[in-house]
Amino acid sequence: MEPVSERYILYYWPTIQGRGEFVRLALEEAGVPYEDVARGREGMGPIERVLDRELELHAPFAPPVLRAGELLIGQTTNILQFLGARHGLAPRSLTARLWCNQLQLTIADIVAEAHDVHHPISVNSYYEDQKKEASARAKDFRSQRIPKFLGYFERVLDNNAGSGGYAASTKLTYVDLSLFQLVAGLRYAFPNTMARLQPQWPRLIALHDMVAARPRIAAYLKSKRRIPFNEDGIFRHYIELDEQV
Amino acid sequence: MEPVSERYILYYWPTIQGRGEFVRLALEEAGVPYEDVARGREGMGPIERVLDRELELHAPFAPPVLRAGELLIGQTTNILQFLGARHGLAPRSLTARLWCNQLQLTIADIVAEAHDVHHPISVNSYYEDQKKEASARAKDFRSQRIPKFLGYFERVLDNNAGSGGYAASTKLTYVDLSLFQLVAGLRYAFPNTMARLQPQWPRLIALHDMVAARPRIAAYLKSKRRIPFNEDGIFRHYIELDEQV
Repeated sequence: MEPVSERYILYYWPTIQGRGEFVRLALEEAGVPYEDVARGREGMGPIERVLDRELELHAPFAPPVLRAGELLIGQTTNILQFLGARHGLAPRSLTARLWCNQLQLTIADIVAEAHDVHHPISVNSYYEDQKKEASARAKDFRSQRIPKFLGYFERVLDNNAGSGGYAASTKLTYVDLSLFQLVAGLRYAFPNTMARLQPQWPRLIALHDMVAARPRIAAYLKSKRRIPFNEDGIFRHYIELDEQV
Repeated sequence: MEPVSERYILYYWPTIQGRGEFVRLALEEAGVPYEDVARGREGMGPIERVLDRELELHAPFAPPVLRAGELLIGQTTNILQFLGARHGLAPRSLTARLWCNQLQLTIADIVAEAHDVHHPISVNSYYEDQKKEASARAKDFRSQRIPKFLGYFERVLDNNAGSGGYAASTKLTYVDLSLFQLVAGLRYAFPNTMARLQPQWPRLIALHDMVAARPRIAAYLKSKRRIPFNEDGIFRHYIELDEQV
């Protein structure tokens, strides 16, 4: 690990967990100081400036973005790969690093689909303007996509059984933190669906609980730094999009 | 670069370009031998086996998958990161490697959206069963998303002007190959839209042309190894989803 002299700066929307939450969880578990800058006095100004290519050579397409000294890093999986290597949240071998990144990219795929459930037609219009299409997409997501993805992650955990319950290594990695967040988010958005299905995934649920109980994560989840789930984020609880019981 | 003793094996659907094409282009430009295995005598059998967690410790969620000796690597951006580092298709510094991966992930985002244009509700049903929703999503994709993403990549190229016209370095990287494929795919799927809009992105179009003219890429594009675009892939030409002229 390289010494870290600068405080990290995280650029992400200040009122939602969103994709930024996967980065926040890694920073919290690493126990490194960071500034969640848009939640401070300047509000959205820093985000606008970091997206400005006149100011930033490597201006990103969208938040989350992490500033680490002279580095400016965009895209969630890219940030996690960087933080994982720097703070002992990823294994060192090439094989294992590729595997972690592969799993994280697969998590990113279902996170994108979880978003598109409530915005199947356009991110530029409101959920209320695409409710009918959202209902159809939610049905497919609940019945096909959640079981396919979470069943996959359960099998990954099963293949790594005997390694302490972690997904990709014998120690905690950023992938485990992200699987915690995925389960938490899906439970928030689709409580009926998850209540019915989750007994199929005992290893995944055990991992969720193990991550939630880690001292730094438990402290974070109780703190004001953890923004509650809400209907502006990726995982949204619209009763009409969940399974009816 | 490490010596490569084994022939690469690519596992991808044999009848479409799809996400596998980003990998094929990198392998072709690198000039390394590879077997596009599902196009051979065994057909889909090898893909089914590589997805089987009983056989593969690191079974992937979905193709494309690359076997490199003992390594089995899934997820397109993950494969490209690996090939880029191994075959001189990515810069060596940490800053530049992160930047390449970030740009590739942003390309992956628009590729996923290009797919969802014709499948906005479900990947488990046919386009013909979601045509109305596809029409609405296509309108948004053409008017909002293509300009936003391609405008972003044009600015990236502008910020790197004076470096030979490449996106992320002073030499060709896998990002340039993927930007070529993105432009080619969007032109195939949305010819009217692209014909009208592309004068806005002169650097991006120049990069497309430069990549297409590289000897190994030009030879590949003329060969039978290049599967033609078609309506089973990601970039599909449905006249009703393009701008009407």
